[in-house]
Formats: sequence, C-alpha cells, structure tokens
Amino acid sequence: MFDFLRPNVRRMAGYTPGEQLNAPDIIKLNTNENPYPPSPLVFEAIRAALTGDQLRKYPQPLGDSFRQAAGRALKVDPDSILIGNGSDDILTVVTRALVPEGGIIASPSPSYVLYKSLAEIQNAMYETVPFTEDWSLPDPWPVKKAHLTFLANPNSPSGTMLPKPDLERLAEAGPLVLDEAYGEFAEWNGIGFASTRPNVIITRTFSKYYALAGIRFGFAIAAPALVRELAKVKDSYNCDALSLAAATAAIEDQAYYSGVRSRMIATRGRMSVALTEFGFHVTPSHANFLWCRRSDRPVKAIYEALKAKNILVRHMNYQGYGDGLRISVGTNPEIEKLIAELRRIV
Amino acid sequence: MFDFLRPNVRRMAGYTPGEQLNAPDIIKLNTNENPYPPSPLVFEAIRAALTGDQLRKYPQPLGDSFRQAAGRALKVDPDSILIGNGSDDILTVVTRALVPEGGIIASPSPSYVLYKSLAEIQNAMYETVPFTEDWSLPDPWPVKKAHLTFLANPNSPSGTMLPKPDLERLAEAGPLVLDEAYGEFAEWNGIGFASTRPNVIITRTFSKYYALAGIRFGFAIAAPALVRELAKVKDSYNCDALSLAAATAAIEDQAYYSGVRSRMIATRGRMSVALTEFGFHVTPSHANFLWCRRSDRPVKAIYEALKAKNILVRHMNYQGYGDGLRISVGTNPEIEKLIAELRRIV
Repeated sequence: MFDFLRPNVRRMAGYTPGEQLNAPDIIKLNTNENPYPPSPLVFEAIRAALTGDQLRKYPQPLGDSFRQAAGRALKVDPDSILIGNGSDDILTVVTRALVPEGGIIASPSPSYVLYKSLAEIQNAMYETVPFTEDWSLPDPWPVKKAHLTFLANPNSPSGTMLPKPDLERLAEAGPLVLDEAYGEFAEWNGIGFASTRPNVIITRTFSKYYALAGIRFGFAIAAPALVRELAKVKDSYNCDALSLAAATAAIEDQAYYSGVRSRMIATRGRMSVALTEFGFHVTPSHANFLWCRRSDRPVKAIYEALKAKNILVRHMNYQGYGDGLRISVGTNPEIEKLIAELRRIV
Repeated sequence: MFDFLRPNVRRMAGYTPGEQLNAPDIIKLNTNENPYPPSPLVFEAIRAALTGDQLRKYPQPLGDSFRQAAGRALKVDPDSILIGNGSDDILTVVTRALVPEGGIIASPSPSYVLYKSLAEIQNAMYETVPFTEDWSLPDPWPVKKAHLTFLANPNSPSGTMLPKPDLERLAEAGPLVLDEAYGEFAEWNGIGFASTRPNVIITRTFSKYYALAGIRFGFAIAAPALVRELAKVKDSYNCDALSLAAATAAIEDQAYYSGVRSRMIATRGRMSVALTEFGFHVTPSHANFLWCRRSDRPVKAIYEALKAKNILVRHMNYQGYGDGLRISVGTNPEIEKLIAELRRIV
C-alpha cells in the first residue's frame, strides 16, 4: 500500500522506548531517569520565561545563551557547542551529515540500540563488533572504513568505560561519536581527548544527570568549524525556548547536581552489594544504573515478578549475547523496596 | 579538513532563519509569528505540568494526550496524527522516510526554501517548477517521478492557495506533502481531501495560528498505517512534556484562537488597502502576511529604511523571480506605525 516508502524504512522494526507506566505508585527503574528532581533554579527559569513573549516568538536558532553558560561550566569554547532536541537529535544530525546511503556505521555491542536504527533509516550498513567478555574492545579494532563509529562511554547496558588508548584506536579508524549520555556520573570524560582530535564529537544529554528527560535537551561538543557544518543539518529551531531556559539554569547549578550525584553513587554502591548477595553478577558501573545477570535462572521471570509488584526494571535481550536486567539507581526508599521484593523472589 | 562530511552537506549553504532581533521596542513583522499571545489556558497547562515530575521523566513518545485532543478538535482519527518538534521536524521525517539518495523532491517556487535544503541534506535532486504569473500551477504539472512533492498551501511568500483540482493533479503524480503551516488562516483546508488519498500528508504548525513558535510543535495528518511507518523515523521522544501540554491546551481552546484570527484578518484587510495606496502590488492573501512588490523602485531600500526605524519585515529574493517584502500581520498599533513610516519613505 505504501510502496512510496523507502524499503529500508518499511522493513525496519523501529526503536521501542522503555515502558512509561506513569501510575503514581510505580517505582520506575527502567529508563535511567534521575530519581531526584531537577534544580529549583530550573523551575524558576521556566516560570520566568513564561512572563515575556518567548512562547509566541521563535527561539534562538543556535541557543547562544545556553552555549555561553555551557562554555563557562565545562570550560570549552561556546562555538564548540551544538544544541540538540535531546542527544538523540544530535546522533541523528551527525549520522545524516556523515553517512551516505550504503555507508558504514560501526559500534561495539551490546550498546545503545538506536545506533542500528539510525543506520537502517539512513539505509547504511551497521557493523557491530562484540565487546570482549570483560567489556573491552577487540584488539585490533576490526572496522577500518566506517563513515561513523558510535561509542557509548560509559556504555549501556554495562555501565563500563573504555580507557583512552581504546578511544585513540577508534578515533584513528575514523570519525567517532563519544556518546557521553552518562558521562557526568563517571570519574573522567572525553572532553580533553576530543579537544585535539577534529574527528571526535562528544554528545551529552540532559535526561540523566540533569534530571530533565521531559524537556528533551542535549548537545554536542566538537571543533567549531565542524559545529558550523553540523548546524546546517539540524532543524533551524530544533530547541524550544523553555527547554533552552531550563538547560541553561541547570548547567549553571553544578553545585546542586554534584550533591545529587554523590547521593546516587552512594546508593549505587549499596545496590551493588545487595544484588550481588542475591546471586546476581553485577558489572562495576560508572553510570546511574547496574547491569545484572545470573547463571542460575532466567532473569526475565524476575523482571516480570518485579513488574507485578509495580517495580519496573529494564529487561534487555541482545542477539548473540543474551539477556540481563538493567536497573536504574533510584532513591534510597525505592531501592529498599526493590531489595525487599528481590529477597522474596530469588 | 572535514573530508569525512558528506560532499552534499559541505557544499550546501544551509537555511538562514529570519532575523531575531529581540529588543523590546522592535516591531517584528518578518517571521509570521502571531502578534497576539497564546491562549491563557496554555500558560495554565505549562504551570500545571511543572508541579508533577514531568520534567524528570521521559514524555509520551507518541503524544497520546495531544492526539486525542487534536482528534476531537479537527474531527480526525487520533491514530492519523504524528507529533513533531515543529512542522520542520515532520518535513524532515517525511523526507527521510520517502526520499533515497539521488531521489527527486519537487515543489513549485517561490515557496518555503527549506524544501530545497532538505533535498540537499538527503543528497537528493530538487526539481522546482515556477508558479505562473498569477500563482497557479503550470498545466500539466511537469514533474512525474518525484519521490516527494511539497506544496505550501497557503504558500509563502505569496499567501495564495491552489484549488483542489491542482492538489488532485499533484497527488496523482506521487506522494504529496500539503504544508498547511498557514492553513488555519484560510477559508478551507486539505483535511477532507487528504482523508481519501493515502499518499497525501498534511502538516501543521503551532508557530503561526497558535502563537507558539517558541515551544516548537507541529504535527502531520496522514493514514494511520502511514503514521506508524513515519513514527519509526522520528526520534523516539521528539516532543517534550511542556510543549505537549501547551499544544494540547491550545488546540482545545478553539474559541480563543478564532477570535484572534478574526482580528488578524481585519488587520490584514486594512494593511492591504494602505500598502496598495502606497504603490505596492499586494497579492491577495489567505495567510497572516502580505506579499508586496513594486515596479517603481527597489524594495530592499524600503526594508532597510524600515529596519532603521526598528520595524523588521522580510526581504525575500528568489533566483529567477526577483524580490519583494513579506510583511506579517501585526497588532493594530504595530501596523499603524508601519503605515506611518511607509508614508514617510515612499
């Protein structure tokens, strides 16, 4: 019926977002949202934006106020920042700018499944290389001619990080997106690494660390001349006035988020101990979630038993790898309930 | 330096948005924003959305609450609605879903210049056919093999509309996007026409009629099975929680916007009379702007003289056609100032 659609689009399955059951009594540990609210300054900034005529008028096309604020917060050139409607928007823009039809997109796996979807939409080839058993890269990295390589660092679902020599090998092989959606939870990030490499693009999101998944905001850090090229591909007004106001206020309140981060990392430590005691193999995490597998029983049944008790975790199943539970770091009361339920289940 | 960028992206100029000089005393008649504020219910809805945890959590991926509201307001099946981060996002998604590299995008011209940019980004060919002198289509329509045809109806910069037999001819030639960014200002629209034609997609924006350019929201109306295919190509969470809340409140307050529309159409009539008296050739408009040309002197100088007086209009110059001023309908006091300045200038 719709034979005017491109065959690559017709045959793809499309990305399935994590379940969003927004009942008030649900404990939501399945999409790595921050369990704590955003900075109070974010709410103030949005309310302030409502008093002028910012709803009625087009927003800043390049988000100059945000770029200035982010430049100060991250100590980078504001011109090296490209704003996005979530970091997914940035990943899309980079793909469209670099990857021709029939081109090659590479990434190690298991990782963020959107990378494959972006290849399918672009009608490009997706070449994935499995991580080694301990979540390292195979040496040498076998994909030499990719138009674009995606590396989530920290990675999802594992929460693991590749060290800089591995980033070096990937960047030598071609253009590299360092997807740092969880970068603020880690002990180091790739900003310094990318600053001397014109073919490395860092992407960040406000959905995790900044507790703003609802406003859809992310950004890239890349060479200013590359940012100018990528800006040609993005929609002119891809970020709205309220999201820009919220993101600007958030990135200026590093003190608040640093406190939230400390609480979450402490909770993550307790979660890891408890889950290990229950017999899960828990991968050491640099992010706001834990990857939990076990060899004695199927984890899907555990996911379902938790869901029956209104606790949502993410059951992930990767072809050629197997399955596991990705459990977001929640508040302390949420994690206590999770632990109490798991004690009954396993 | 960035030879990893696609050549089609490197050589394109990129879209230049209209000037956004947001000084408080600027009279902004250059980007067809609504001069009146959005419905009071929009502000209420955004404030209400701030009280829960909607900032922290991912929004509805398909915008189900908005789809229900839009379905009621427009008397269409909610499943026929695809939400977008502005209608530009929808135009991008449709292009990526239908047009392969080397494919053909067609549109009559002069029209919205984004259509050409979308072809360039996709590395497709852009075939444009000039409107006739009176803004009609050439008969027969000469582009028979386009993967996608864009028709802005009402058109910008002209404000003119093609009648249904012309839409019929375009839809017979292939997949057609009826870009109704200004559709709510016209006396009729294409919803009924599209409802029986599975290859016609209507796009709407909240930036003009709904006075919400700042929140970036638009949508498509198409066959539900086609909407499901297009949804695979959009970013999973392309619309944020506050924009969804705002758009839902706006589309439910048709009474408010109907009143705003009446005022604007009355103002447009007065503008048209005055501009004609000043020697402009003013094209009869079905939108919230007027296309004004003159044969006795260059209009660019008039644009510049107005800008020097803090009145911004849009100077448009189209290759092979020539230039003119596109002047948005403002408030009555704004238009009085415009007329007073023009009296001095021409």
